[in-house]
Amino acid sequence: MLKALRCNSLEHCFQRVTSLAEAQQALAEPQAILWLDLFNPSQEELQDVGAAFHLHPLAVEDAGHKHQRPKIEEYDSFYLLVFYTVQAEPSTDRLRVCELSIFLGERYLITVHSEPVPELEETEQRWTRNVRQLEGRVIVLLYSLLDTIVDQYFPVLDAMVEQAEALEDRLFSGELRQRSFTQDLLALKKRFLTLRRIAGPERDVLNVLTNRDNPLFNEHALLYFRDVYDHIMRVADTVDLYRDQLSSTMDANLSIVSNDLNKTMRTLTAASIVLMVDALLAGIWGMNFEYMPELHWTYGYVVALTVMAAISLLLLLIFRRLRWL
Amino acid sequence: MLKALRCNSLEHCFQRVTSLAEAQQALAEPQAILWLDLFNPSQEELQDVGAAFHLHPLAVEDAGHKHQRPKIEEYDSFYLLVFYTVQAEPSTDRLRVCELSIFLGERYLITVHSEPVPELEETEQRWTRNVRQLEGRVIVLLYSLLDTIVDQYFPVLDAMVEQAEALEDRLFSGELRQRSFTQDLLALKKRFLTLRRIAGPERDVLNVLTNRDNPLFNEHALLYFRDVYDHIMRVADTVDLYRDQLSSTMDANLSIVSNDLNKTMRTLTAASIVLMVDALLAGIWGMNFEYMPELHWTYGYVVALTVMAAISLLLLLIFRRLRWL
Amino acid sequence: MLKALRCNSLEHCFQRVTSLAEAQQALAEPQAILWLDLFNPSQEELQDVGAAFHLHPLAVEDAGHKHQRPKIEEYDSFYLLVFYTVQAEPSTDRLRVCELSIFLGERYLITVHSEPVPELEETEQRWTRNVRQLEGRVIVLLYSLLDTIVDQYFPVLDAMVEQAEALEDRLFSGELRQRSFTQDLLALKKRFLTLRRIAGPERDVLNVLTNRDNPLFNEHALLYFRDVYDHIMRVADTVDLYRDQLSSTMDANLSIVSNDLNKTMRTLTAASIVLMVDALLAGIWGMNFEYMPELHWTYGYVVALTVMAAISLLLLLIFRRLRWL
Amino acid sequence: MLKALRCNSLEHCFQRVTSLAEAQQALAEPQAILWLDLFNPSQEELQDVGAAFHLHPLAVEDAGHKHQRPKIEEYDSFYLLVFYTVQAEPSTDRLRVCELSIFLGERYLITVHSEPVPELEETEQRWTRNVRQLEGRVIVLLYSLLDTIVDQYFPVLDAMVEQAEALEDRLFSGELRQRSFTQDLLALKKRFLTLRRIAGPERDVLNVLTNRDNPLFNEHALLYFRDVYDHIMRVADTVDLYRDQLSSTMDANLSIVSNDLNKTMRTLTAASIVLMVDALLAGIWGMNFEYMPELHWTYGYVVALTVMAAISLLLLLIFRRLRWL
Amino acid sequence: MLKALRCNSLEHCFQRVTSLAEAQQALAEPQAILWLDLFNPSQEELQDVGAAFHLHPLAVEDAGHKHQRPKIEEYDSFYLLVFYTVQAEPSTDRLRVCELSIFLGERYLITVHSEPVPELEETEQRWTRNVRQLEGRVIVLLYSLLDTIVDQYFPVLDAMVEQAEALEDRLFSGELRQRSFTQDLLALKKRFLTLRRIAGPERDVLNVLTNRDNPLFNEHALLYFRDVYDHIMRVADTVDLYRDQLSSTMDANLSIVSNDLNKTMRTLTAASIVLMVDALLAGIWGMNFEYMPELHWTYGYVVALTVMAAISLLLLLIFRRLRWL
Ligand SMILES: [Mg+2]
Ligand SMILES: [Mg+2]
Ligand SMILES: [Mg+2]
Ligand SMILES: [Mg+2]
Ligand SMILES: [Mg+2]
Ligand SMILES: [Mg+2]
Ligand SMILES: [Mg+2]
Ligand SMILES: [Mg+2]
Ligand SMILES: [Mg+2]
Ligand SMILES: [Mg+2]
Ligand SMILES: [Mg+2]
Ligand SMILES: [Mg+2]
Ligand SMILES: [Mg+2]
Ligand SMILES: [Mg+2]
Ligand SMILES: [Mg+2]
Ligand SMILES: [Mg+2]
Ligand SMILES: [Mg+2]
Ligand SMILES: [Mg+2]
Ligand SMILES: [Mg+2]
Ligand SMILES: [Mg+2]
Ligand SMILES: [Mg+2]
Ligand SMILES: [Mg+2]
Ligand SMILES: [Mg+2]
Ligand SMILES: [Mg+2]
Ligand SMILES: [Mg+2]
Ligand SMILES: [Mg+2]
Ligand SMILES: [Mg+2]
Ligand SMILES: [Mg+2]
Ligand SMILES: [Mg+2]
Ligand SMILES: [Mg+2]
Ligand SMILES: [Mg+2]
Repeated sequence: MLKALRCNSLEHCFQRVTSLAEAQQALAEPQAILWLDLFNPSQEELQDVGAAFHLHPLAVEDAGHKHQRPKIEEYDSFYLLVFYTVQAEPSTDRLRVCELSIFLGERYLITVHSEPVPELEETEQRWTRNVRQLEGRVIVLLYSLLDTIVDQYFPVLDAMVEQAEALEDRLFSGELRQRSFTQDLLALKKRFLTLRRIAGPERDVLNVLTNRDNPLFNEHALLYFRDVYDHIMRVADTVDLYRDQLSSTMDANLSIVSNDLNKTMRTLTAASIVLMVDALLAGIWGMNFEYMPELHWTYGYVVALTVMAAISLLLLLIFRRLRWL
Repeated sequence: MLKALRCNSLEHCFQRVTSLAEAQQALAEPQAILWLDLFNPSQEELQDVGAAFHLHPLAVEDAGHKHQRPKIEEYDSFYLLVFYTVQAEPSTDRLRVCELSIFLGERYLITVHSEPVPELEETEQRWTRNVRQLEGRVIVLLYSLLDTIVDQYFPVLDAMVEQAEALEDRLFSGELRQRSFTQDLLALKKRFLTLRRIAGPERDVLNVLTNRDNPLFNEHALLYFRDVYDHIMRVADTVDLYRDQLSSTMDANLSIVSNDLNKTMRTLTAASIVLMVDALLAGIWGMNFEYMPELHWTYGYVVALTVMAAISLLLLLIFRRLRWL
Repeated sequence: MLKALRCNSLEHCFQRVTSLAEAQQALAEPQAILWLDLFNPSQEELQDVGAAFHLHPLAVEDAGHKHQRPKIEEYDSFYLLVFYTVQAEPSTDRLRVCELSIFLGERYLITVHSEPVPELEETEQRWTRNVRQLEGRVIVLLYSLLDTIVDQYFPVLDAMVEQAEALEDRLFSGELRQRSFTQDLLALKKRFLTLRRIAGPERDVLNVLTNRDNPLFNEHALLYFRDVYDHIMRVADTVDLYRDQLSSTMDANLSIVSNDLNKTMRTLTAASIVLMVDALLAGIWGMNFEYMPELHWTYGYVVALTVMAAISLLLLLIFRRLRWL
Repeated sequence: MLKALRCNSLEHCFQRVTSLAEAQQALAEPQAILWLDLFNPSQEELQDVGAAFHLHPLAVEDAGHKHQRPKIEEYDSFYLLVFYTVQAEPSTDRLRVCELSIFLGERYLITVHSEPVPELEETEQRWTRNVRQLEGRVIVLLYSLLDTIVDQYFPVLDAMVEQAEALEDRLFSGELRQRSFTQDLLALKKRFLTLRRIAGPERDVLNVLTNRDNPLFNEHALLYFRDVYDHIMRVADTVDLYRDQLSSTMDANLSIVSNDLNKTMRTLTAASIVLMVDALLAGIWGMNFEYMPELHWTYGYVVALTVMAAISLLLLLIFRRLRWL
Repeated sequence: MLKALRCNSLEHCFQRVTSLAEAQQALAEPQAILWLDLFNPSQEELQDVGAAFHLHPLAVEDAGHKHQRPKIEEYDSFYLLVFYTVQAEPSTDRLRVCELSIFLGERYLITVHSEPVPELEETEQRWTRNVRQLEGRVIVLLYSLLDTIVDQYFPVLDAMVEQAEALEDRLFSGELRQRSFTQDLLALKKRFLTLRRIAGPERDVLNVLTNRDNPLFNEHALLYFRDVYDHIMRVADTVDLYRDQLSSTMDANLSIVSNDLNKTMRTLTAASIVLMVDALLAGIWGMNFEYMPELHWTYGYVVALTVMAAISLLLLLIFRRLRWL
């Protein structure tokens, strides 16, 4: 599905474009900036766009395949960027990660994706708002896009941080250590890992975009991409903090489970000893020896029960003092 | 809340400034150095100050948002620094971390923060004391500020170090391994991690400030910032030492808990065997076979009890020799 | 076993070559590109080829020995590359790794391997398809070869990823923790480690091939090798993700095993206490004291059984409330 | 406490100096080399020395405070080095670490420390021995000092290595895993960590001193500091080896404790089953059913005991075969 | 013990040299290449050789002390290299590591070692074989030496790899987890660590020897040392793989021990419950209540035994279904 927007970089007015032909025509005007969005394009559509914009076959191939790493690659007349949008699936808390291929030319930007990307609408709004800055060049559009994508990481990350804190609270809440605790922790750790592996290479991409030694853009534009770089750094930093903390949480869980086991065993040991001692006494007085004088005492039975109770109490006190009960 | 102080860099005299207009006026005099402190400013106030001092919108936006990383960013006519103050909450031992945005111009320094920062009063005192050094330029103020902030890390860090040592002592104090031990350890580890993640990027900032290849300041000033750099390095070093040691402490705790469990089980095993053997004997002599000669011996009962006691003693000696008791 | 193919780089036509002599002859023509494939050659054959192509003895020695690392080495008139093909053995899931030594000359490419390499046939097809690109030079052949090899990593990697996910599912499936789980996990971890140690140095090789500062090839060719580099990076990235996740899985397994043990012990403790209390009561009423009035009650036995049942029920309720049962 | 020694760099003769004034005087002679040692100086004394030698206030402040990192800092007319001496406290095995601030001028060296440093006497002897080398300049003194300090690390390190090996032997010595084992291991690990954190930055200092690109000294002198660098590298290497090995030792300890627990539980299980089976039989034959024919057999009792013994033996054989006993 | 060999670099003929004086004489001839081997020399012998060859005292000192790191150091007229030979002690599997100091001059090579080094004889053979290469210069000898040393690492490494695989197999072989398993694993890990710490710095030495930016030798010679570098890289790589795998093996061992414990406890729990239930029944029917009608039934005893057997069977079936048995 092709969707396009052209912008006159002098007059800052926008027009919808409805076909590839029209888009190519638009590009012929020197002030036009063009944004082409391809949603789930067929291989054929991709080839057509590639031909129309003189895109390198390897770059077109990358855009057609999924599971590229976040990257920036320079070609003769354009750059290919790969970025990821991230959203939390509301019900399952799993991350919905969507890959976005971006062709950046002198006066055009082409986005390719196989799933709907809500960030693109927000990008359009920001572009029309930002367009007067930076002399209306195409990088305003790129900045608006990357800024929108990275801004969307924060609500996802904040939710994950809350989940991590909640897991830690559960650890000490005193309720039974459940299988679900470990499962949730492992799943959350994987979400952090996934986010880290998106943020890491994207930081490298923004490093290229803000490199002063070999600038792609002028000094003024660098400031804008440095701002995005700063945000992605914060994402990476926070992820690292919580990955580290989740590892400690899992270690702590093991300590607590082991300690709980110890407490269980102390209960068992104390209870066993008390009950076995009493049972031994009952067994002794249940023996069939002929000459067991106490069996014939009037209060023999009462004395026996009293002895049992006394010994039980004594043992219980000892175990209490040892803090085994 | 705006608070400002101007300093005549020739005469080294200070004057309070009460409004933004006055501050701008002050700046018109070539010898004036101005310190503007904005405590919890509204977006509007921030915009006004930004406009008055020609601050870049992206920098003003950063100062208005929380949760920036410690950083230094160069803009056309000023630098933006983000630094953190750290204090221990007296009751809970949690770290109270406060973000401070700092605009450093040719002859002004603007601090922005959303919570009260006691370090600023100390900074003012140090500035008036240090002002004759370094020809009274604005970096004296910046140095006074950063030096004060970093100096305040040490009491916090020292308290954390003491807590870490105390935890280790608790580990071997022989008292019961409590859930609170693991909880305290995990919380302390997180405090170290938080401090590390502040000190790490701040070290990078000071690395920029003391960089000889691309100096922001003259040679003489570098020495002062190198001193602050050295302090922050010590913070990072000490944090690393104790993070590592706390990990070992947690591992050691697991070993000790497992070993305690082993001791519990040996007690249970030894006690069970002794009591079950005796109970078996009582059970045997409690059987109802017609022909059990010993039941009719006069001293049968005494012999039985003696045999039980003897076997018990023997078993106890064996377990003692095995060090199971 | 020698197999050779020559290509006329102008006319793009291919011819089988059947002997070393013919191959040398072919090389005399300036437009000829030659691919020599040596399958399990004897030392003598290798020496002959080395002499015919003026290969350095150290390079020939490397090609004759197994267990080189993936590498690229520059010699006077050629490069020696070592690369690995990877396949999953269908039945055992073990990786079948095959070493490939590649001599890259001005107009020839020699591949040496001691096991059959199915990737070579695919390479031949791709070469004939790609030959018109890049002016038909030998690097088209090299690119076709490396691209084919690296493309073959993905099905293997995908299968391993599925196995890792399956292991994680098994962890929480509730069925008994079996020895086979740990064994499978350890074996899978080793497969990932093996793949990582192939992909790591191969990435370095491709880094050399795509190095702009000291280019082996022209700008246009770099794009092709950068594409292979990108694929190998993705392999390394995915491997790192799953190695990390498998470590967490093993840690989680330990937590779960420990927790299961805790549950077992609570069952044992609860059951023991209930049964021992009842047994103690039976033992008491089995004592042979003369004066035990309840023994003579008409409903004494029924009362005794009722008391036992009641106490058992009470204890069971308590343990249920403690979530021990 | 001030102690000073002057050396005539031409005649290589040494003289004690007893006051700061005399020291200043001595420095006026162009051939004189001066070593000033300040043991636990008051702030005032430090200020006086600082003023007399034109030392920068920040450097004097560093020398007056404890807990600097090992470092080298360049000032206008001198260098400030911080180094640590290390000694093992004979009784407790704890490390006694002593900080040494060193001011290195053109013709003087000032050492500041707050505790007695036995290495200084050795340094004096080596200086007088080495003085004819390197044209008697002040770096001979610096080399003598650093070489002495680093040489003293080795007996300490060797003792720690022996302790690490002894701990490992204790692990497999078969005696009970004691709380003291973990405590000793944790303490030793901390000593290695402390030594590592001294050796690490000191290596960086020596790296600066032996840097060929920006030499502080002439080529000939570099060889001497490279020798010290080499020693400190060995310290760092050995520490790293044993830190790694101690981590493995702690992991191994956990495996062994867990395995010991397993053995304890198997003993308990086997013993319980044997004794409970026998007790069950005794209980059965202790039941009060009217018609239990075997109770009336002449050899009933003997048969019963034989059956118990036979079953016990059988069970013991089974458990022995299962290697549970 | 001094042993020497001279080689005429033009005529490639070798002669034994028997004294230091003769060796010095030999060196006077411009075509002579001299190899001096000092086995366990006294300090005096070392000093004599140092004086005869104008070796720097620091270098001679290093050669006289043990426990240097593998290194290369440049002096005025020679290089000092330290390398290690590694052999497996056949009986104990411990590594026998031997330090070799190597002085490399323009036309001489001096080896110093305190234990016999079998690699030296192999070196002599290779030298005589290789001498015609590289114009017979002294680096042929150095290459022959280093190549021989590094080649000898592989049989040692291969044996260690086999031991690591064997340990892994033992882990899953089903036999009892023995103390010796952990001991062997820890010892093997240490051997790998030792080898790693030799191979790591030696790789750095070979990096210096093959450095194109600052070549010690001509281009042609570099190829030879690159080949040794490649071998040492393979050693380091393989060691890293197996160190990582051994860590996983130890973790897996802990999981398996914990799981075995769980199985033991389930056996205990199931057996206890069955036996205690039966014992309780026996205890109940052993009570002395007057009115227990079933005691008087003719088949009471048989019914009782049947009930016990039935309940036991039922419980066993339940535990079997729970997979506890
Ligand atoms: Mg990715
Ligand atoms: Mg920002
Ligand atoms: Mg930034
Ligand atoms: Mg951050
Ligand atoms: Mg980061
Ligand atoms: Mg932060
Ligand atoms: Mg300082
Ligand atoms: Mg410093
Ligand atoms: Mg420090
Ligand atoms: Mg540090
Ligand atoms: Mg770090
Ligand atoms: Mg850990
Ligand atoms: Mg490999
Ligand atoms: Mg690709
Ligand atoms: Mg790429
Ligand atoms: Mg990837
Ligand atoms: Mg990677
Ligand atoms: Mg790790
Ligand atoms: Mg772990
Ligand atoms: Mg330190
Ligand atoms: Mg060295
Ligand atoms: Mg040395
Ligand atoms: Mg090392
Ligand atoms: Mg090191
Ligand atoms: Mg560990
Ligand atoms: Mg070593
Ligand atoms: Mg090789
Ligand atoms: Mg190589
Ligand atoms: Mg290898
Ligand atoms: Mg390596
Ligand atoms: Mg581990």
